Amino acid sequence: MAKSRDGWQWTSHEGIKAGLPCAGVIHPPQSVKNFDKVYDVVIIGAGYTGLTAARDLTAAGFQTLLLEGRDRIGGRTWSSEIDGYQFEMGGTWVHWFQPHVYREISRYGMKNELAFSPDYTHKKNYFSFVTEHGARNMSHEEEIALFSRAVEKFANVDGNLGKSVMPLPFDQYSNETVYSHATMSVADRLEQIKNDLTDDERNAISAVVLVCSGGTRENSSFLDFLRWWAAGNYNYPTLLETVLGIKLKCGQSAFALRFFQEAWSSRRLSYSFNTVVTQVDSSSRDMVTLDSRDGLTFRAKRVICTVPLNVLNKVRFHPSLSRAKLDAIRHKHVNQCTKLHAEIKDAEMRSWGGVTYPNNRLLLGAADGTTPSGNTHCVFFGCSENHIHAEDDIDETLKAVNAFAEMDVERLVSHNWSKDEFAEGAWVWYQPGAEAKYLGTLRERHGPVLFANSDWADGGWRSFIDGAIQSGTEAAFTVKNELRGAQRESSIKSKDDE
Amino acid sequence: MAKSRDGWQWTSHEGIKAGLPCAGVIHPPQSVKNFDKVYDVVIIGAGYTGLTAARDLTAAGFQTLLLEGRDRIGGRTWSSEIDGYQFEMGGTWVHWFQPHVYREISRYGMKNELAFSPDYTHKKNYFSFVTEHGARNMSHEEEIALFSRAVEKFANVDGNLGKSVMPLPFDQYSNETVYSHATMSVADRLEQIKNDLTDDERNAISAVVLVCSGGTRENSSFLDFLRWWAAGNYNYPTLLETVLGIKLKCGQSAFALRFFQEAWSSRRLSYSFNTVVTQVDSSSRDMVTLDSRDGLTFRAKRVICTVPLNVLNKVRFHPSLSRAKLDAIRHKHVNQCTKLHAEIKDAEMRSWGGVTYPNNRLLLGAADGTTPSGNTHCVFFGCSENHIHAEDDIDETLKAVNAFAEMDVERLVSHNWSKDEFAEGAWVWYQPGAEAKYLGTLRERHGPVLFANSDWADGGWRSFIDGAIQSGTEAAFTVKNELRGAQRESSIKSKDDE
Repeated sequence: MAKSRDGWQWTSHEGIKAGLPCAGVIHPPQSVKNFDKVYDVVIIGAGYTGLTAARDLTAAGFQTLLLEGRDRIGGRTWSSEIDGYQFEMGGTWVHWFQPHVYREISRYGMKNELAFSPDYTHKKNYFSFVTEHGARNMSHEEEIALFSRAVEKFANVDGNLGKSVMPLPFDQYSNETVYSHATMSVADRLEQIKNDLTDDERNAISAVVLVCSGGTRENSSFLDFLRWWAAGNYNYPTLLETVLGIKLKCGQSAFALRFFQEAWSSRRLSYSFNTVVTQVDSSSRDMVTLDSRDGLTFRAKRVICTVPLNVLNKVRFHPSLSRAKLDAIRHKHVNQCTKLHAEIKDAEMRSWGGVTYPNNRLLLGAADGTTPSGNTHCVFFGCSENHIHAEDDIDETLKAVNAFAEMDVERLVSHNWSKDEFAEGAWVWYQPGAEAKYLGTLRERHGPVLFANSDWADGGWRSFIDGAIQSGTEAAFTVKNELRGAQRESSIKSKDDE
Repeated sequence: MAKSRDGWQWTSHEGIKAGLPCAGVIHPPQSVKNFDKVYDVVIIGAGYTGLTAARDLTAAGFQTLLLEGRDRIGGRTWSSEIDGYQFEMGGTWVHWFQPHVYREISRYGMKNELAFSPDYTHKKNYFSFVTEHGARNMSHEEEIALFSRAVEKFANVDGNLGKSVMPLPFDQYSNETVYSHATMSVADRLEQIKNDLTDDERNAISAVVLVCSGGTRENSSFLDFLRWWAAGNYNYPTLLETVLGIKLKCGQSAFALRFFQEAWSSRRLSYSFNTVVTQVDSSSRDMVTLDSRDGLTFRAKRVICTVPLNVLNKVRFHPSLSRAKLDAIRHKHVNQCTKLHAEIKDAEMRSWGGVTYPNNRLLLGAADGTTPSGNTHCVFFGCSENHIHAEDDIDETLKAVNAFAEMDVERLVSHNWSKDEFAEGAWVWYQPGAEAKYLGTLRERHGPVLFANSDWADGGWRSFIDGAIQSGTEAAFTVKNELRGAQRESSIKSKDDE
C-alpha cells in the first residue's frame, strides 16, 4: 500500500511517525504529457466534489484535467488501512438518507459494504458522562433519552421541533422565517433556553453541537445545526444514526477510487497530483490559464474550482473576484475539529461511548470497530474550545482520552486538519449570520470559473460527503450543458410547445 | 398540450372522455430513420427505468434506441394538466429519503418544485373514519396516533419495530432472520396479533396495508410492507410523509421529460413510440433482434428490457427464458390498485382525509391540492378487495367517494392500470413467499438481455419511482462497463496493486 504524506500515527514502541498508507494514492502521480493542450475542463481538487465532476464530465465526452495539491484523492475524506483495519481520517459515515452519496454507493454495487458503527453486544456496554460535577456511567438508553431531550429543547425554536421554520431540509431558505434565526449563535440559543435546561442537558447539548461545529459556542451558527437536525428528520436518534451510524467496510478511499477509476476508464481524464494551483486567469476571452506552484501552466475552456473555503484565499484570481466573494473567503468558517483514533487493548470496550464537557480537550468518544488483533477502535472528537493539536504532546492527548474512562491505548492515528495547508479546518460550519450573507456569493461563478464544494453545497447535507457529491454533480451538469450548447436541446420538443 | 390515449376524465356536463393531455407525449413519435442500424443498446420501455438507462448510456457515448408501446414517456408514472392543475395518474410522491429520485431532482435543479400534499390550514380539518361500526370524524392528531399504534403493532415482529429483522432497508436480506417472515401474508400477520388489536386498529392497519399492496389481505406479502416500513425509518409519520407527502408542482411528466431531453441532447438517442415489442431473439452470437407488433425489426448488441412483471409474459424470448424466470413471470404480482382523482366544489375540504373499511369500494382518500378554480383535489385509493373499475359505473364510483364524506364532485380523473395492456396492475406487491423465491431470478440477465424495473429493484424503494431510477442506473452502468470492456480500467492502478 502506498503511503500518503498526510496523517500520522503513534504507538508506544515506535512513537510518532508522519504519513499513513492510503489506497487513494495514485500511481503514477501525473498523467499529463502535452502541456499545450487546451482542456475542455480543468478541475482543481480531487475530493469527492472534483472526483464526481471529473467522472461525469469525462463520461459526457469532455477532455478533463484533474489537478490536486495532495498525493492522493479524497480531499477531506480518506481512509488508511493499518494492520488490516480501516481508519477514517476525515469524512466517514454514510446513510441512505443522504441521497447523493447513497446513489453512488448503490450504483457502484457497494451496499454490502455498509457496517454499523455502534455495537451494543459487548460487556462494557455503557456511556461515560463526565462533567464539572464528576464522572458517571449510564446506559445507552439513558444516554439517548438525555441527549434527545436536550437537543430537542435546543432545536425547538418554533414549538414544532424546528419543522415549521425549516420544513424542507434541502431547501432551507424556502421559508422566510428561517432568516429570523440567521444571526443566532449556539451561545445565543443556549442563553434563550437556559432556564429550561438542567446542567446535564446543557452539557449534553453543548458537547453535541460543538462536535458538529468544531468551533466554539460563540462562533458557531445555530442555523447550521438546525439544518443537520432537519436533515436528520428532526429526531435525535435518526440524526445520530445518519451522521455517526454507518460506515464503509472497505474504507472511504476505496469508494473514492471508484469515481477516479471510472473517470480514468473513459480515456478522457488527465490528472496531476502534487500540483498546487496558485493562480487562475480568466481574463482572456476563450480560455482560462492556471498556474501551479511549481511553475506548470494549464489551459481550459472551463474551470471547476473545488478548493475549500478556508484555503480559497491562497488562489489568486484574475480578474479579481467580486468584493462580496472576497469578503466571504476572508470570513472563512469555524470548524477546527480534532478527530483522533485510539486503539484500545480491551475488546469489551466495543460497546462504549462517552462525553466529557466542559473540562476536557476532547468532547466525545465512541467505539467504532474491532481491529484484527482484537483491540477496540474508538474515535474521539474535539473542537476549538479547549483545542488540542493531538500530535503536539502525546501525554496530554492520552490524558484527554483517559478523561473519558481508563483506557490502555496501543495506538493513536490522526490527521491534523487545522494544520493541513489544503484544508485549514474540517467540514464547514459557518459563523452566525454568515450563511445568509455569504452562501449566495460563494456559489456564484466567476465567468468561466465555477466554484463547487460541500462547503457551500445547496442541499441538506452541506459539509458532508453527500454535499460534495451533490456539488460536483451540479457543476458537471452545468458545464456539460454549456459546452454542448443549447442548440441540441432545442431540436426536440414535446407537443406542448407547438 | 398533446393528448395521450391513456387515462380518462368525467364531468357531470360532459360525461366520460377517454384520453388526457400529457406533457410526456413526444413529437414526432418516431425518430428512427435507418432500420438496418445495429444499436449499441435497445431499451424496451420509456418509464423512469428506461429513461434513466437511455440518458446514462447516451451520455456514455452509446447509440441507444428507446422503444415504447405507449404514446408517451413515463410508464406507470405520468401527469395530466387539466385546467391548469396537475393530476398524477400513477407514481406521484417523492422525498429526500428516496436517494435515487432525489439525486435527480437535485441534479435537474428542481428542489423548488417540491410541494407538500397535506395542508391542515383549512376549515374542514379532520379525518373521516368509516367502519362497520359507523362513521366518525377525528382530528389529524388522533388519526396519526391511531394509525401509528396500529401499524407499529403490525410491524413489530421482533419487539424492536422490525428493526432487528430488517436493519438495512436497502439490503433486506442482509439479515437471515428476515426469511422466517418471508411466506407470511398480511392476513397471517393480522391473525397473529388479533388479540392485541382493537376493531379500530384492525381496520386502520388493514386499510393502510391494502392501500400499499393494492391486493387482498390473503394475497399480499407481509415482507413488502416491512420493507416500506423500514425504508420509512420504522415510523408511521415518516413513512406517511415519505410515500404520500411531497409531490412535484410541475407534474411527474415534466420531470420525466428532463431525462428524455437530456438523452436526446446527446445526439445518440433514437426512439420509437407506439412500438410494442413482441419478440426478443438473442440466439445469434453477436446481436439481439427485436420484433414489434407492427412488423418492425430492430437490432442491438445489448437489450435492457424494462417491461413490467405483470405483462412480461407478452414478450417472447428466443432462446427461452429459464424455467425459474418463466415461473416468476407467470406468478405475477398482486397490485390492482384503483387510483381516482376527484375535484370537489369545496375549498375547505383541502384539510380533509379519510379511510373507509371494510365496506366501501375505495379505502383511503386525502386532499392533495387546490385547483385554479378553487376546488379541492382529493385522491382516492382502492384495492383488490371490493375492487372497482371506476369508469364502469360512475354512479357507483361517486357513491364510493361519498361514503367517506358528503362531497360535491365536479370532475373525476383516473387511469385504469388493471386494464392497461402495458401494465396490468400498479406498482409491484408480491404474494407471500414470492420475493424470496423469485426476486433473484427476475434480476438475472438472459445473455445480452438485461431486465431492469422497479418491480424487482434491489433497494429500499422497490415499486417506487426511486426503484425505477435505481434499476435504470444499474443496468446502464453494467452495459457501459461491458461495452467498454475491462481493458481501460486495468491500465490505472493505485500503488496498492504494485
